[in-house]
Amino acid sequence: MATDFIAPPAYALGIDLGGTNARAAVVDANGRIVSSAKRRLDERSPAAVVEAIAAAAQSALDAAPGVAVKACGVGAAGQLRGDTGVVAVAPNLGWREVPLGGLLSKRLARPVRVVNDLKAAAWGEKRAGAALGERDVYTVFVGSGVGSAVIANGQLVLGATGVAGELGHVKMVPGGRRCGCGEDGCLEAYAGGHNLIAQMREAIEAKVATALMTRIDGDLSLLTAAVLEEVAAAGDPVAVRIYEQAVAFLGQAIANQVTVLNPARLILGGGVLLHSPRTYDRIVQGVGLFAARVSREGLKISPAALGDDSGLIGAALLAID
Amino acid sequence: MATDFIAPPAYALGIDLGGTNARAAVVDANGRIVSSAKRRLDERSPAAVVEAIAAAAQSALDAAPGVAVKACGVGAAGQLRGDTGVVAVAPNLGWREVPLGGLLSKRLARPVRVVNDLKAAAWGEKRAGAALGERDVYTVFVGSGVGSAVIANGQLVLGATGVAGELGHVKMVPGGRRCGCGEDGCLEAYAGGHNLIAQMREAIEAKVATALMTRIDGDLSLLTAAVLEEVAAAGDPVAVRIYEQAVAFLGQAIANQVTVLNPARLILGGGVLLHSPRTYDRIVQGVGLFAARVSREGLKISPAALGDDSGLIGAALLAID
Repeated sequence: MATDFIAPPAYALGIDLGGTNARAAVVDANGRIVSSAKRRLDERSPAAVVEAIAAAAQSALDAAPGVAVKACGVGAAGQLRGDTGVVAVAPNLGWREVPLGGLLSKRLARPVRVVNDLKAAAWGEKRAGAALGERDVYTVFVGSGVGSAVIANGQLVLGATGVAGELGHVKMVPGGRRCGCGEDGCLEAYAGGHNLIAQMREAIEAKVATALMTRIDGDLSLLTAAVLEEVAAAGDPVAVRIYEQAVAFLGQAIANQVTVLNPARLILGGGVLLHSPRTYDRIVQGVGLFAARVSREGLKISPAALGDDSGLIGAALLAID
Repeated sequence: MATDFIAPPAYALGIDLGGTNARAAVVDANGRIVSSAKRRLDERSPAAVVEAIAAAAQSALDAAPGVAVKACGVGAAGQLRGDTGVVAVAPNLGWREVPLGGLLSKRLARPVRVVNDLKAAAWGEKRAGAALGERDVYTVFVGSGVGSAVIANGQLVLGATGVAGELGHVKMVPGGRRCGCGEDGCLEAYAGGHNLIAQMREAIEAKVATALMTRIDGDLSLLTAAVLEEVAAAGDPVAVRIYEQAVAFLGQAIANQVTVLNPARLILGGGVLLHSPRTYDRIVQGVGLFAARVSREGLKISPAALGDDSGLIGAALLAID
């Protein structure tokens, strides 16, 4: 009697490595989270971070008994050296040239693939979120920084050295505002959350009259992107200038990528965009105004669907796929 | 006695369809042209163009006796409807929605693949020219218009509707100079060859004092990109303004794509760039200034190597590959 062979379901560990926490999850091949766990990163040396990841991973594995997990994917906030597993720079962790993939693979006794966190998040959205079933996807994240990820012909685009997607560092104003990267006039220098706050602070410190000062009652630590949007909506000229510049540059820069990449779907995510329907709508409007007609015809635009889990899910699926 | 089976070498027909001529070539799997032929397009109806292509193809085939050609690739100057073989718009031919692939496949009794001419040229450079062996390539063409083609993960990026690469229509100046596409502020409106000429003509017709007028002895038909460069190099303020604007915008726009795409190699081609070492050097300089550091480290830049044959060769190789 012939017995049907049924392939065991595929599972992988997904790791989301930020600057504050390491999260781990057991994820199935459809992007469903079976179990998850989190560890705070009290210490940021590579050895301590690897131990924190291993502890989170073990908790997630313990909570999914009987599940065979063969591979592990990591989405790390930083720049990777291509597909080598080496983290070239991770500013939040103070890392340079850390062979995270190798260290973690040894510790977990499993193959480990490390990608940039935004690329992992974009892959999560493609495989199990807002871009399910699409072959050509452009995903933009606006949070404290600005980043993006390109999926073309159904594949994640890493780029020649693994740093494709650096939308935050396209130049909007040659010789313009200094960016955290050390170069001038980058999109992020005008539109990233950290820089929105910096621009408000600079106006206040330059004693420019602005309702921002009264809104925060003199406490500069209360400045946020949400405060900027609120005060701009009330018509304060300083807040209007900063906010309008940011949304105009975001709309133009994203539109220009839509023009060149011709994606089927544009996904907008990240803290600043997901928590502000008004800013989201302004970006959509900017893409409609500035993307070439032939590229915006038929373009679908949607918010990221998986929220904070997209990186965990995408990292695991990149290990499976 | 066992006989070794040797796969017959693969050959394909490559067609380069411009606005004036149809060229055809028999090309081998390494991108070598075995034979070629050309027909003038005296009439531009789809039926007449298909006959001209068929005649050129027959001449090329007759000149390569004993070669088995199974497939045909066409690089057409126009916008394609994805990979359907339908030419959505071909301004030089006055075409709209012409099912060229279907018509030609019937006439040639062979499978036919139709792609945009710049995509075919980029593929030729990747398979047999300046980008041989690279997986991630960005190719920019500056001629009468401005266009580009993206190769990522070793594959040509067509985009969701086949129009990826429209670099000429990224917006440099919201609400700026009107472009031939009907939108405002496009790169091509400042930097395409047709628009360089239009800007010189506008300055002359507005009676602005400029050495351009004496250089052409009052004959506006003598205005070319080469004349602009020459008169700008001599310091004429009008020519300097137009030329500097064009090279600055080209450098910035190309650099921004390098930042997002992170190619291993950037290839610069097209009539304006290939015939002007000075403009070529200025673009390279602009990319060095404006591309994000992490994307320009290790970036190789070179001129297109196959000249006018890149489209023919690339179209044939796209049919083989």
